[in-house]
Amino acid sequence: MRNILIIGGGGMVGQKLAQSLADAPLVPGDRVTLCDLMFPENGAPVAEQIVGTVTNSNVLKRLTTMKPDVIYYLAAIVSGESESNFDLGWSVNMEAFRTFLETLRAQVQASENTYKPKIIFTSSIAVFGAPFPDKIDDTFFQAPQTSYGAQKAISELMLSDYIRKGFFDGLSIRLPTICVRPGKPNLAASSFFSGIIREPLNGQTARLPVSPETRHWHASPRSAAGFLRHAATLDQSAYQNRPALNMPGVSCTVAEQIEALTDLAGAKVAARIQPDPDPAIEAIVKNWPRDFAPDRAKALGFKAETNFKQIIQVYLDDDFNG
Amino acid sequence: MRNILIIGGGGMVGQKLAQSLADAPLVPGDRVTLCDLMFPENGAPVAEQIVGTVTNSNVLKRLTTMKPDVIYYLAAIVSGESESNFDLGWSVNMEAFRTFLETLRAQVQASENTYKPKIIFTSSIAVFGAPFPDKIDDTFFQAPQTSYGAQKAISELMLSDYIRKGFFDGLSIRLPTICVRPGKPNLAASSFFSGIIREPLNGQTARLPVSPETRHWHASPRSAAGFLRHAATLDQSAYQNRPALNMPGVSCTVAEQIEALTDLAGAKVAARIQPDPDPAIEAIVKNWPRDFAPDRAKALGFKAETNFKQIIQVYLDDDFNG
Repeated sequence: MRNILIIGGGGMVGQKLAQSLADAPLVPGDRVTLCDLMFPENGAPVAEQIVGTVTNSNVLKRLTTMKPDVIYYLAAIVSGESESNFDLGWSVNMEAFRTFLETLRAQVQASENTYKPKIIFTSSIAVFGAPFPDKIDDTFFQAPQTSYGAQKAISELMLSDYIRKGFFDGLSIRLPTICVRPGKPNLAASSFFSGIIREPLNGQTARLPVSPETRHWHASPRSAAGFLRHAATLDQSAYQNRPALNMPGVSCTVAEQIEALTDLAGAKVAARIQPDPDPAIEAIVKNWPRDFAPDRAKALGFKAETNFKQIIQVYLDDDFNG
Repeated sequence: MRNILIIGGGGMVGQKLAQSLADAPLVPGDRVTLCDLMFPENGAPVAEQIVGTVTNSNVLKRLTTMKPDVIYYLAAIVSGESESNFDLGWSVNMEAFRTFLETLRAQVQASENTYKPKIIFTSSIAVFGAPFPDKIDDTFFQAPQTSYGAQKAISELMLSDYIRKGFFDGLSIRLPTICVRPGKPNLAASSFFSGIIREPLNGQTARLPVSPETRHWHASPRSAAGFLRHAATLDQSAYQNRPALNMPGVSCTVAEQIEALTDLAGAKVAARIQPDPDPAIEAIVKNWPRDFAPDRAKALGFKAETNFKQIIQVYLDDDFNG
């Protein structure tokens, strides 16, 4: 029996992952524990839910004392909030992660290295900053243009060094923007990419804060859970020395998103999208990646959708209650 | 009158910079203060020397309360020691730099943004990790293979975000290996690159811990001081959003270093180099960069030597007492 811990397991991606592990365990008997500030009602079925914050060192001690075999680290302040609350973003996204690594290293060293956990950290394509090549390859440099992106890039570098020193196995997964997110808008600057699909399908109007020409990089929540599942099955030797991977995804413009929505749900639904330019959102999003050549991840077996219609269909299949 | 502060000003590069600023101030009347754990006897003439460590928050408060206009941040645990003492490297090279940034930000914010210092941070080509392209260009990714390299890459990312948010101006200067270092060997894994030139010129034998085919990237102490001087004269708009620059240098093998020494000082001097392979040093150095195409830095006016003979000649001119 293995212990799997999902830190930030109350959030959307964490819940998708937990549900996926409940539906089809990676290894029969895997025991899944979640930690987060709060959990949804009727959430994914797991062995245990621990309420706590990663900024509390006692919580980190309790979690690491359980000696989880696989730790998914998803907890983060999202991009928009990290931009508006500088101190909070650095505290949660960088300093708490460093304290987590140190707390876990203490467990590993106390075990005389008989305990060697695997850490799967959710990073982001926000580690990159404009200007970009047409497609970002696997050796393009990290020059983030948001605090969130800087904190993710730094966390990757910290984790990579702890891995290199042999304290843990691990991998950083640079998620595309996850779309279509179920539920309500959040404080991420990318929230509208889901909103313009989800709200119209549910009979509501949606604000479009950027130009229809805006191109971006997407994958579904189902793909996100799939990336994280697959990451846990890979051997460290497959990606050693470069344990941060750009994930596959779909590159498309907002206009192409709207076209896919029109094809699947009709012009009347798509007409619920209302242009409403927001310079603050535009300023953030214009520095975000548009397209990738994620060759390493593909060679390692990571898979995503290949067009935006498939992404909408995943929402209709998995989350739509209309 | 401007205040210039050099944190780590007691070290070799700090002293070269301070001497250069004494010989030819950037702006007439510039007042130079150094901070370090210790200072050499008969060191560079400066207005003030402050003994203190960057891991002491009271020292950082004292330094930032002086409201320096330009701050050179050179303090670091070197690569070899950061590799052997994991905790010390992270504490000094990452956490102290973060505390420095926060302490300085508090000064800036207390001034209601009338105070806007410029931070020039000495980073390193150790932010890169093998395998490499033939020449590393300005958009090659940071995948360090030492803790020192990880800490430098992280510090750059932190500084970049504070700059992007408008708290400071600033720039990270990724120094080549500085060669020929005067004085004694240090704990840097790169120390032998200087040792094999300096010791033979001074009548002593020198250990060569790596293969003669080892190719690496060098610049003289005079060039290092020149980079740092030039960085202070650039306007933020020249490099905004990407304030970390690979410096120019000389790419050559150890065999070519020895050939240059033989040309300048004769075969008898070069014969004082004794092969003495050290697997620990080889393991670090084999993951270090060998050659660069530092186009951005060159376009911005940064200059270095163009062959290794010139580098030895700088040592003979500036530091040799034989």
